Amino acid sequence: MVRDGSVLSPALQALIARAEQALSQALPAEDRSPVELHRAMRYAVLGGGKRLRPLLVYAAGHALGEEGVRLDAPACAVELIHAYSLVHDDLPAMDDDDLRRGRPTCHIVFGEAMAILAGDALQALAFELLAHDGHARNSTEMLRVLGHACGAEGMAGGQALDLAAVGRKLSLVELEHMHACKTGALIRASVRMGALVAGADMATLAALDRYAHAVGLAFQVQDDILDVEGESAVIGKTAGKDAAADKPTFPSIIGLDASRARLAELTATALDAIAPLGARAELLEELARYAARRHH
Amino acid sequence: MVRDGSVLSPALQALIARAEQALSQALPAEDRSPVELHRAMRYAVLGGGKRLRPLLVYAAGHALGEEGVRLDAPACAVELIHAYSLVHDDLPAMDDDDLRRGRPTCHIVFGEAMAILAGDALQALAFELLAHDGHARNSTEMLRVLGHACGAEGMAGGQALDLAAVGRKLSLVELEHMHACKTGALIRASVRMGALVAGADMATLAALDRYAHAVGLAFQVQDDILDVEGESAVIGKTAGKDAAADKPTFPSIIGLDASRARLAELTATALDAIAPLGARAELLEELARYAARRHH
Repeated sequence: MVRDGSVLSPALQALIARAEQALSQALPAEDRSPVELHRAMRYAVLGGGKRLRPLLVYAAGHALGEEGVRLDAPACAVELIHAYSLVHDDLPAMDDDDLRRGRPTCHIVFGEAMAILAGDALQALAFELLAHDGHARNSTEMLRVLGHACGAEGMAGGQALDLAAVGRKLSLVELEHMHACKTGALIRASVRMGALVAGADMATLAALDRYAHAVGLAFQVQDDILDVEGESAVIGKTAGKDAAADKPTFPSIIGLDASRARLAELTATALDAIAPLGARAELLEELARYAARRHH
Repeated sequence: MVRDGSVLSPALQALIARAEQALSQALPAEDRSPVELHRAMRYAVLGGGKRLRPLLVYAAGHALGEEGVRLDAPACAVELIHAYSLVHDDLPAMDDDDLRRGRPTCHIVFGEAMAILAGDALQALAFELLAHDGHARNSTEMLRVLGHACGAEGMAGGQALDLAAVGRKLSLVELEHMHACKTGALIRASVRMGALVAGADMATLAALDRYAHAVGLAFQVQDDILDVEGESAVIGKTAGKDAAADKPTFPSIIGLDASRARLAELTATALDAIAPLGARAELLEELARYAARRHH
């Protein structure tokens, strides 16, 4: 098979497997009380997914010479946060989605109340996991980065902007700001935490932040393009959902061609930012291309 | 006025004022975007409340000779967590309560979606605040304690047990275990965090944990008694709500007299645990009496 960037390399596939195993160990066992809560938490996290955020943690660490187990806790933490945000986002009061990653959403399987609690507990677990890793390099700084990325100036704030945007005509700048908070903040935190584990200097942190900002936005542009072009069976959620909900998207604001051009521009920006890191940034480079070319 | 333990001393009143001010500063300003989210967060936190958890942080620090500003971050963090848990607990899918602290609940004022997000953002803010205080003594340990208290083995786990208990007949042991998770975990974390700031040794931490466990449970027993005896206007929420929802309570399982006896026993246990600390534990002592005698 010729790799066109839509299929991940064996190196990243292996890191996905590593993240899956670390997540399974970090989550509470299903046979321990409260069983239903633990089942809902595991269902929400272990049901597949691209694992982009853990991969960014590992890839950023790799680019700076850090390969060790010290990347596992931050890799798990960012994925736990991502999984909790999807559970709450899918709730009837929010996006009201029945399908996620090709399976019924958490509240469909476990009920709304348990889905709310599972999300809450996953957020707490992410912070607990990082704090447990108390002797890791820069662990307090990582906790600060993660807390900020999750809160009112990050992911939750972006979702509030998203709510306020339904039915309203956003400008491209407003749309990009919304996404920079809603999904971008956690993606930037992922890269930063990988770099912090590796003891990156300020200049490297700044370059990686430019990379992460561009990759996060590129990922979202491709998401919007797939929502227009994709089929539910391939993308694993309801296609055409955003347009039907009258949500602002890149294609709805600037059109499909300009969206593709913006995607290419963002990918170039990301690759440019990590060029000074040389060959060790190969995984980051691959992830930047993947964000733009994935089919689901 | 003769103080019978139902009204707080000037020292604790002053600490409430201190907590209010610290919380107001820690919360995002209402005039900053996303305005609606920030308004919902401030509404949820600053609308009164007993501030028992911040008071326990300050009182535990006080008992060990720590009076400083280093107690403010943990005091705020535990109250932000408490406030978020109330917002989510009041949601239609959970307890479906319209009234809290004598005011409409967060989702009644801001809508369900915003209430879910405000709760999520408050949890993140609690961890961020603690992590920002990175040079404080034992900050990573405090983050670990808080994460554990919030998660599946603490508050969220207790709420899952509570959900599973509706309509079912619990034993006294099961009821106390549920409360030890649902409200007890955060109360114990509050006392422990105050003690950690003060650099407590292991023996003192263990004694304070016995105190906190008893006070947490006493608080809940009194809550259940007030639900039977109280009036909505005084207790600030709908009286008789638990019985109407067929929720297990201390009076429903062991009767009102035995509930009062259990309350006295728990208060004695709490006071006994802190007796070795002497006069400096005066605020902890007052809070143990207050938990059992408060009228709302």
